[in-house]
Amino acid sequence: MQDRLLPAQVGQFRWIDIVGLENDAEISKLAQDLGLSDLSIADLFHLDQRPHTDIDGDLVQTVLRMPVRNQPFTDQITLVLGQDFVLTLREQRRDCLDGVRKRLAGGKGRIRNSSEYLFYSLCDAVVESFFPVLEEQGDLIEALEERILHNPSDGAMRNIHMLKRDLLVLRHAIWPMRDALAILQRDDTPQINTDLLPYLRDCSDHAFQLLDMVEVYRETAQGLVDLQLSSLSNRMNEVMKVLTMIATIFIPMTFIAGLYGMNFDRASPYNLPELGWRFGYLYAIGLMVISAAVMLFTFWRLGWIFGRSGADPNAAPPDAD
Amino acid sequence: MQDRLLPAQVGQFRWIDIVGLENDAEISKLAQDLGLSDLSIADLFHLDQRPHTDIDGDLVQTVLRMPVRNQPFTDQITLVLGQDFVLTLREQRRDCLDGVRKRLAGGKGRIRNSSEYLFYSLCDAVVESFFPVLEEQGDLIEALEERILHNPSDGAMRNIHMLKRDLLVLRHAIWPMRDALAILQRDDTPQINTDLLPYLRDCSDHAFQLLDMVEVYRETAQGLVDLQLSSLSNRMNEVMKVLTMIATIFIPMTFIAGLYGMNFDRASPYNLPELGWRFGYLYAIGLMVISAAVMLFTFWRLGWIFGRSGADPNAAPPDAD
Amino acid sequence: MQDRLLPAQVGQFRWIDIVGLENDAEISKLAQDLGLSDLSIADLFHLDQRPHTDIDGDLVQTVLRMPVRNQPFTDQITLVLGQDFVLTLREQRRDCLDGVRKRLAGGKGRIRNSSEYLFYSLCDAVVESFFPVLEEQGDLIEALEERILHNPSDGAMRNIHMLKRDLLVLRHAIWPMRDALAILQRDDTPQINTDLLPYLRDCSDHAFQLLDMVEVYRETAQGLVDLQLSSLSNRMNEVMKVLTMIATIFIPMTFIAGLYGMNFDRASPYNLPELGWRFGYLYAIGLMVISAAVMLFTFWRLGWIFGRSGADPNAAPPDAD
Amino acid sequence: MQDRLLPAQVGQFRWIDIVGLENDAEISKLAQDLGLSDLSIADLFHLDQRPHTDIDGDLVQTVLRMPVRNQPFTDQITLVLGQDFVLTLREQRRDCLDGVRKRLAGGKGRIRNSSEYLFYSLCDAVVESFFPVLEEQGDLIEALEERILHNPSDGAMRNIHMLKRDLLVLRHAIWPMRDALAILQRDDTPQINTDLLPYLRDCSDHAFQLLDMVEVYRETAQGLVDLQLSSLSNRMNEVMKVLTMIATIFIPMTFIAGLYGMNFDRASPYNLPELGWRFGYLYAIGLMVISAAVMLFTFWRLGWIFGRSGADPNAAPPDAD
Amino acid sequence: MQDRLLPAQVGQFRWIDIVGLENDAEISKLAQDLGLSDLSIADLFHLDQRPHTDIDGDLVQTVLRMPVRNQPFTDQITLVLGQDFVLTLREQRRDCLDGVRKRLAGGKGRIRNSSEYLFYSLCDAVVESFFPVLEEQGDLIEALEERILHNPSDGAMRNIHMLKRDLLVLRHAIWPMRDALAILQRDDTPQINTDLLPYLRDCSDHAFQLLDMVEVYRETAQGLVDLQLSSLSNRMNEVMKVLTMIATIFIPMTFIAGLYGMNFDRASPYNLPELGWRFGYLYAIGLMVISAAVMLFTFWRLGWIFGRSGADPNAAPPDAD
Ligand SMILES: [Mg+2]
Ligand SMILES: [Mg+2]
Ligand SMILES: [Mg+2]
Ligand SMILES: [Mg+2]
Ligand SMILES: [Mg+2]
Ligand SMILES: [Mg+2]
Ligand SMILES: [Mg+2]
Ligand SMILES: [Mg+2]
Ligand SMILES: [Mg+2]
Ligand SMILES: [Mg+2]
Ligand SMILES: [Mg+2]
Ligand SMILES: [Mg+2]
Ligand SMILES: [Mg+2]
Ligand SMILES: [Mg+2]
Ligand SMILES: [Mg+2]
Ligand SMILES: [Mg+2]
Ligand SMILES: [Mg+2]
Ligand SMILES: [Mg+2]
Ligand SMILES: [Mg+2]
Ligand SMILES: [Mg+2]
Ligand SMILES: [Mg+2]
Ligand SMILES: [Mg+2]
Ligand SMILES: [Mg+2]
Ligand SMILES: [Mg+2]
Ligand SMILES: [Mg+2]
Ligand SMILES: [Mg+2]
Ligand SMILES: [Mg+2]
Ligand SMILES: [Mg+2]
Ligand SMILES: [Mg+2]
Ligand SMILES: [Mg+2]
Ligand SMILES: [Mg+2]
Repeated sequence: MQDRLLPAQVGQFRWIDIVGLENDAEISKLAQDLGLSDLSIADLFHLDQRPHTDIDGDLVQTVLRMPVRNQPFTDQITLVLGQDFVLTLREQRRDCLDGVRKRLAGGKGRIRNSSEYLFYSLCDAVVESFFPVLEEQGDLIEALEERILHNPSDGAMRNIHMLKRDLLVLRHAIWPMRDALAILQRDDTPQINTDLLPYLRDCSDHAFQLLDMVEVYRETAQGLVDLQLSSLSNRMNEVMKVLTMIATIFIPMTFIAGLYGMNFDRASPYNLPELGWRFGYLYAIGLMVISAAVMLFTFWRLGWIFGRSGADPNAAPPDAD
Repeated sequence: MQDRLLPAQVGQFRWIDIVGLENDAEISKLAQDLGLSDLSIADLFHLDQRPHTDIDGDLVQTVLRMPVRNQPFTDQITLVLGQDFVLTLREQRRDCLDGVRKRLAGGKGRIRNSSEYLFYSLCDAVVESFFPVLEEQGDLIEALEERILHNPSDGAMRNIHMLKRDLLVLRHAIWPMRDALAILQRDDTPQINTDLLPYLRDCSDHAFQLLDMVEVYRETAQGLVDLQLSSLSNRMNEVMKVLTMIATIFIPMTFIAGLYGMNFDRASPYNLPELGWRFGYLYAIGLMVISAAVMLFTFWRLGWIFGRSGADPNAAPPDAD
Repeated sequence: MQDRLLPAQVGQFRWIDIVGLENDAEISKLAQDLGLSDLSIADLFHLDQRPHTDIDGDLVQTVLRMPVRNQPFTDQITLVLGQDFVLTLREQRRDCLDGVRKRLAGGKGRIRNSSEYLFYSLCDAVVESFFPVLEEQGDLIEALEERILHNPSDGAMRNIHMLKRDLLVLRHAIWPMRDALAILQRDDTPQINTDLLPYLRDCSDHAFQLLDMVEVYRETAQGLVDLQLSSLSNRMNEVMKVLTMIATIFIPMTFIAGLYGMNFDRASPYNLPELGWRFGYLYAIGLMVISAAVMLFTFWRLGWIFGRSGADPNAAPPDAD
Repeated sequence: MQDRLLPAQVGQFRWIDIVGLENDAEISKLAQDLGLSDLSIADLFHLDQRPHTDIDGDLVQTVLRMPVRNQPFTDQITLVLGQDFVLTLREQRRDCLDGVRKRLAGGKGRIRNSSEYLFYSLCDAVVESFFPVLEEQGDLIEALEERILHNPSDGAMRNIHMLKRDLLVLRHAIWPMRDALAILQRDDTPQINTDLLPYLRDCSDHAFQLLDMVEVYRETAQGLVDLQLSSLSNRMNEVMKVLTMIATIFIPMTFIAGLYGMNFDRASPYNLPELGWRFGYLYAIGLMVISAAVMLFTFWRLGWIFGRSGADPNAAPPDAD
Repeated sequence: MQDRLLPAQVGQFRWIDIVGLENDAEISKLAQDLGLSDLSIADLFHLDQRPHTDIDGDLVQTVLRMPVRNQPFTDQITLVLGQDFVLTLREQRRDCLDGVRKRLAGGKGRIRNSSEYLFYSLCDAVVESFFPVLEEQGDLIEALEERILHNPSDGAMRNIHMLKRDLLVLRHAIWPMRDALAILQRDDTPQINTDLLPYLRDCSDHAFQLLDMVEVYRETAQGLVDLQLSSLSNRMNEVMKVLTMIATIFIPMTFIAGLYGMNFDRASPYNLPELGWRFGYLYAIGLMVISAAVMLFTFWRLGWIFGRSGADPNAAPPDAD
């Protein structure tokens, strides 16, 4: 980390990029030298903050959150803007600022001319880094939709739950970013030159765009819960229909078989005379066939069999879109 | 596309209508010539933006979304208003601007007199183009309502889910349009002449009307989820009732048959004396009939049969509306 | 319709009441003569607008919706207030303005003195006309509550769905009426004399009261969905309990009967010795009674029978309110 | 009622307390004498209003709702503040103003000195009267929670529904009370002396506190719906598990019994040789025991029996709070 | 308590810390001496208030709530700031102010210099004390998630319900704290020196952070309800599938056994000729095996067996995150 404490001297201003908070004494010392107040320095070491902007005398301190890895968990990044420096502080080495570094290295135009433009570029890079993460979430949602309709198991619900939690984390990283960026655009923030305003407004627009995406995904994910519950209920209906059909067809048939399996004394002409009929067996089987036919006819009337596939074509038009 | 880059010289101002973003160098060059800032030019190539209006010096840049095909997916259209030109830029050839083209060709009144009025006419055409799409969604909802009540299958839920997703897309195209149009009506937008204000207000009213329609459809679509879950639950009740009735009628009867199918040694007078009765068979059948009658009576008392149709008339009045 | 175009000359101002939009040329001509702008005239023929108020030069144009028949569908009414006239325009002949007509005919006080007071009276009549419609909806809800608790069939859910849709239509007629009325009370609406303000405020209060009623009914209707789902679930529980009790009582008994219906060779002393017992039949019946008793005891322990009615009294207090 | 129309002459101002609206002519006359406008007088007879405050010239007219009996239905009370009088009007004799009457009778301090302080005291008494009613609702919720977890019957859902409806009525009595009280504290209400402001702010605080309580109870009551649905679903699971266990244990056993109850001709050595075995019966019983054991083992593996109680201890910690 | 009434004389100002409200006369006397108004004194004894700040002449009275024990129930703490004193009043002895006491005892810097800084430090300590409580709630949620997915019993739902109730209590302690702190930062609160503003803003930021955490937990807890309902429904599906499979495999087999257990008179060649076949028994067993095979094949086609585990791998990718 020490090597990073060496300021990257760029034209008239420096970008000081600190990774990791272990060297707290050194960081505090540096921050004090740069003119941060005690409260601002304390905030540097306070992780898990929500994005916001504080004006600390001549300095502007903005806390943002950036997505890390391809998991939607977010990491905090603190940016401090001074007259002749930009300080960035975060815990994890991986970040989303490589694009800015390349532009600095390339030595192209405005980004080397003022600390404010670099500060804006860093904020913009953080905002932009959410887009690929959100697009991944969108793909996950589509995969889940398909899965639920074909196999509404416990796993699907667990995945929906995780998806919703991740979107919630993203929402709480993005939502307050709008305020953090709005403060930079206020009239009473003289640290930011007015010709940066269109750039910051554009950055705000992107944050709004992100929020819109999160809201769409969140609502869609909540819709997946209903889809899952309906799918489970529908699956249960099918299971029960199979059981009911098999059971109700065979139960009367089994009863008839049981009836003629009784051992009443055939000496009496009133006891089970059917057993002595020449075509008694065929008669019994006939009874069974009739009872099964009545059941099948009933199921057809209830629309449980055949009628199903016959009813769908009429209902197909809404399916066609 | 090149032919479209030739400005359609109309009176004192031009309408430049660009389709497709492939010719990016040429488009950038043209935009620079028209006086757009670098940021505005970058925005021209940024698809999937949410509707909004930016003031860029003397120019007004409005991003809107318009519905494409009869699917409710939306396409972006960027409109730029200058003193002596209107620039429109979109990706797909099909659009909703034919009405405006015809009025221009017809050479009627105000639309040929000022770029601002043309700009308004284009915005209005985009807003109006949502009405037929929303009316289609309304028809879909009514078709789904009927279908769910008659056949609450998986397909219905899938359709509801798609409908909700489409309405969500429409909502996010329409909702921010109100702000985009409101900025055009602000006092600090001198690019728009005050005598256009009633027209823009009318256009805003239509956007509000659209939003109202979307909200009604969204809430109704959410209601369909409850309808579907209740229909599935109701269907399951019916299935279970059939199973329960058949099973509980035949199970005791089958037991009685099994009882008199036992092979106890008739030598003992205490073993199955019924088997030797003259009317033993009739007695057994009588037992079975009684047990079935008790079950049917119980179902009638529980209101599962007959009583149902008898209970409905009392409850009918709320049905009558 | 023509006879209605003859202005009803009342004191110093006229009330022009037009029914039906077929005579569009005539209506446009009249509106132009009265001083309406082109945009306002176009709005006269645009049905299905949401309630709102536009200031059109010296004129005030208010669009409201009024309930028609005892169905909760709403019809549009456009009111235009001028110095010396009030214009009302609607499509259906039936309206809610008879009270105003009677007061005019009776020649009582203020309503004959100024077009503004007549305009207010008409708005007020429209607002008041929603009260009986909403009270009907309240009665429907109470009837549905009773029905769901006693007979949670598909029909109930269909009725809840229709009720919710009707309340949604009413809400979207009432909600924007508040803004339409608020604009009339603004300082920058000189067309309305300040001594009408208390009257308009009173009218606004009624609109708020209506909105409160709609919100209460909407929330209650949504509660009916939960009631319906719970009722269906409860009904299913009962059905399943009946099936389970009958099945689990008779299944072991039937098994025992089947056991002693087996045909093992009695030559071996180890095969079915029970069949040869003097009291074998009684023994078998004893086994069956014991198995049934065990099942009934289990159901009693599970609280499915008897215990139910014993548990309720303790839970009764919350029932008492 | 007449006796109440006699003003209770108290120091320099009168408190006129009217119960019942039958004597409308007399009440109108009195109100006119006190200086109320026609609109305000009409409002006196309009029941079921939502709480609000109107400024009527020099008078302040506040409509509030107060709970009646221990039922959470609310009754309207209209308070009018004049220079030298306070008028209260309500329909039912029972009220919540006895505390104020006692303080007046006791002749203690400020309440006898100004009509404004009496007016505040009456508003405060109305606000305070909601606290015991809400605490009762809280007790009802706790009783319902217990009941649902132990006996999720239809009755519970009916009670939840009634509870939600009552809380909704209370919410719509309390929510607009905040605005009604806020108007009294506005700078442009000179009828209220500024040294009453701390008192009115305190009263507003209590109204906010009430609203908070209602919102907590409403959300908790909505949670009870989920609790009820989950309880019903859980109960169904238990019922089904019992049925499934009994059925799946006995069905194979009954099949085996049936198998050896067949009457195939033993002349063929291939037909049912088991029937001739010396230990055939024991063999059949052995088969049955094995099949039952397999089923029981399966249920144990599925965690339906024994395993349940073994899994709970691990999950107990979250239960412990 | 008396010992606590002895003011802890610290530099130029005193911190008076009162525990318990029993000594009301003494407390009232002390408060009057300190300059509190009658209304403020009454408020000291009013428990269960929502957090808010009142300006009482030169004094500032802030009511906050702090969590007690590790239960999320909250206790009220009243703080009064005067020129030369800070008064704290609460009912329970345990509090969250030990950190402040240590810093005072340690005699470090600002906290001993002004009553305002002590007042801020106390507010900050109350706000900070919610963090560990909320983190505990977060752990509870994660434990519940695991439990529901593995064992969705009644207990889980009860725990979710308690969790939601506790989070609701926390939300209503935290939400109004933001307003209570905002009033301290307003321009018209001269009792607070402007150089305390950054400290109070930092404290407000922490309150917002808390609110964000509560909202995330509340939404996640609500998601657990869906998870629980889906888990129960899924579990039911499994139970029903087991029953259906066993029943539908054995019911036809049992029927066949019953068929050949009938006692028709073998004298007729048409009665049960199968019984006389040499391989009749094998034929019957063959029929049974075929019927079972058909059923198993059907279950495999429906995806109830084997196919399940075969379908999962395809659906695994969304599981992988
Ligand atoms: Mg926030
Ligand atoms: Mg949005
Ligand atoms: Mg949105
Ligand atoms: Mg949304
Ligand atoms: Mg939002
Ligand atoms: Mg949103
Ligand atoms: Mg839901
Ligand atoms: Mg938006
Ligand atoms: Mg609306
Ligand atoms: Mg709406
Ligand atoms: Mg809306
Ligand atoms: Mg709506
Ligand atoms: Mg609206
Ligand atoms: Mg309300
Ligand atoms: Mg409400
Ligand atoms: Mg409301
Ligand atoms: Mg509302
Ligand atoms: Mg719900
Ligand atoms: Mg309200
Ligand atoms: Mg609240
Ligand atoms: Mg709240
Ligand atoms: Mg709440
Ligand atoms: Mg609220
Ligand atoms: Mg709330
Ligand atoms: Mg639900
Ligand atoms: Mg609040
Ligand atoms: Mg937030
Ligand atoms: Mg949230
Ligand atoms: Mg929220
Ligand atoms: Mg919030
Ligand atoms: Mg939030």
